[in-house]
Amino acid sequence: MPALIECVPNISEGRDRAVIDAVASAVRTVPGVRLLDVSSDTSHNRSVLTFVGDAAAVLQGVRALFEAVLPRIDLRRHQGEHPRMGAVDVVPFIPLRGSSIEDCVKLAREAGAEIAERFGVPVYLYEEAAAAEHRRNLADVRKGQFEGFGEKMKDPRWAPDFGPRGPHPSAGAVAVGARPFLIAYNINLGTRDLSVADRIAKAIRHMSGGFRYVKAMGVELAERGQVQVSINMTNFRKTPLHRVFECVKSEAERHGVAIVGSEIVGLTPADALFAAAEHYLRLEKFTPEQVLETKLLED
Amino acid sequence: MPALIECVPNISEGRDRAVIDAVASAVRTVPGVRLLDVSSDTSHNRSVLTFVGDAAAVLQGVRALFEAVLPRIDLRRHQGEHPRMGAVDVVPFIPLRGSSIEDCVKLAREAGAEIAERFGVPVYLYEEAAAAEHRRNLADVRKGQFEGFGEKMKDPRWAPDFGPRGPHPSAGAVAVGARPFLIAYNINLGTRDLSVADRIAKAIRHMSGGFRYVKAMGVELAERGQVQVSINMTNFRKTPLHRVFECVKSEAERHGVAIVGSEIVGLTPADALFAAAEHYLRLEKFTPEQVLETKLLED
Repeated sequence: MPALIECVPNISEGRDRAVIDAVASAVRTVPGVRLLDVSSDTSHNRSVLTFVGDAAAVLQGVRALFEAVLPRIDLRRHQGEHPRMGAVDVVPFIPLRGSSIEDCVKLAREAGAEIAERFGVPVYLYEEAAAAEHRRNLADVRKGQFEGFGEKMKDPRWAPDFGPRGPHPSAGAVAVGARPFLIAYNINLGTRDLSVADRIAKAIRHMSGGFRYVKAMGVELAERGQVQVSINMTNFRKTPLHRVFECVKSEAERHGVAIVGSEIVGLTPADALFAAAEHYLRLEKFTPEQVLETKLLED
Repeated sequence: MPALIECVPNISEGRDRAVIDAVASAVRTVPGVRLLDVSSDTSHNRSVLTFVGDAAAVLQGVRALFEAVLPRIDLRRHQGEHPRMGAVDVVPFIPLRGSSIEDCVKLAREAGAEIAERFGVPVYLYEEAAAAEHRRNLADVRKGQFEGFGEKMKDPRWAPDFGPRGPHPSAGAVAVGARPFLIAYNINLGTRDLSVADRIAKAIRHMSGGFRYVKAMGVELAERGQVQVSINMTNFRKTPLHRVFECVKSEAERHGVAIVGSEIVGLTPADALFAAAEHYLRLEKFTPEQVLETKLLED
């Protein structure tokens, strides 16, 4: 398999079908790019594109994305529930099999330099690509949003990594970064008691003493008469699904509650499921090269 | 993903590198064919090729295989431990994602008719492609081997499905069939007592009352000081890995023995591992389309 990188840019348009289609089509027609998904949220007024390719193709995909977005999205007229600072709001690069987080950091820097130079949009590197610790967290970078960015950028701590010292008039600024694949994973509990889900979420999440790469909260599933531990697995290789599942199971049992089921929302890399099979079947010497479809992906 | 079919022909040459390479190269150069593996066994004097493609490409791969094998392998001079009736001994077609066992039965008939007509080799359809129950089992079809086939073919019950009523002088006869993917799966037990592995093998295999799609036997692993339940999973969709694993675990516990590990020998379809992950993580509404790599295989 060639070294593939995934790119999941978020753009500030989730309502106007013609704009979303034009942007998707611009990305889709780049040679070597596979556009896997486009999800739009009308209340957020925001769309998420998912595409993959090798580093060169993905970089060209980002270029095509900006070329399509800049004439079509004007943040001065944008409203939506989700915080945003740019017409292209955030461009994360994610390593798939064959590429590393370092490859993605390198690509984020290249893409950032090019976006600034070619389109005049200021660029902030975040997460693994961040130049300083206070710029690592996307929420901190985005704070102030489009409307406050002119002011925020005067602070030397918030000078952009690339590009002009003020926001682009219609496109604002963009965060470009590198991070591991994020799996949205929910575990449903056989109780209506939200406090049980809350307590388990607290037990497993990093913030309050749990696993390093877990974010979690309790959620009510009124229509099912159940509650859910809603989880973001931010690094499934270091904190795997099965370990979190077993921990939730043990914590739930202590409350006399069973796990009814779990669900993966959206996409997951095959490796995350292989790791669960490997764990429970106690597989020895397993490698993904033993999987037929992995061989089919090799070139 | 296009409808892919796997073909795993066995040829009666496992020693002469030049012959094996020439045959592999003939298959590899067919457009649309991916040659995934070539395994040769010198004591069996036999090689197994694994290749995939759509039905048309795989059929052309089989044609190329015969063209390369017929001038190079002469069964009159062949010796090896493994029973065989042909220079190309057996040609099984196996459905991968997107194709069905019915597609493979159809392809086996097409391939059989063509092999007989083009190369003058008598063809026996076996397993799912068999025309009668007594011709389903490959061992029964092959009985008598190359040396006895002239006599065997005089029996009307053993007239070929396609081709002449006598063996090809140097290439004998060939079995062409359709079957599900076979997973070689071994479970290692924390004891030196072979009788425990034997009893568990007996408990899980179809023949003696176990699972419909399991063949199993006990094996000694002298160097590890353990024993093994060595399993052929002949239909992992109907008898899945995790169900067999849990049954072996429970039977072993009854003897006070633990499962040390398990191993998949050779290749497995991703679906077999996804099913295990789905079972143990109690996944709801999971589909293989949620797996990133599956999307990458779609065309």
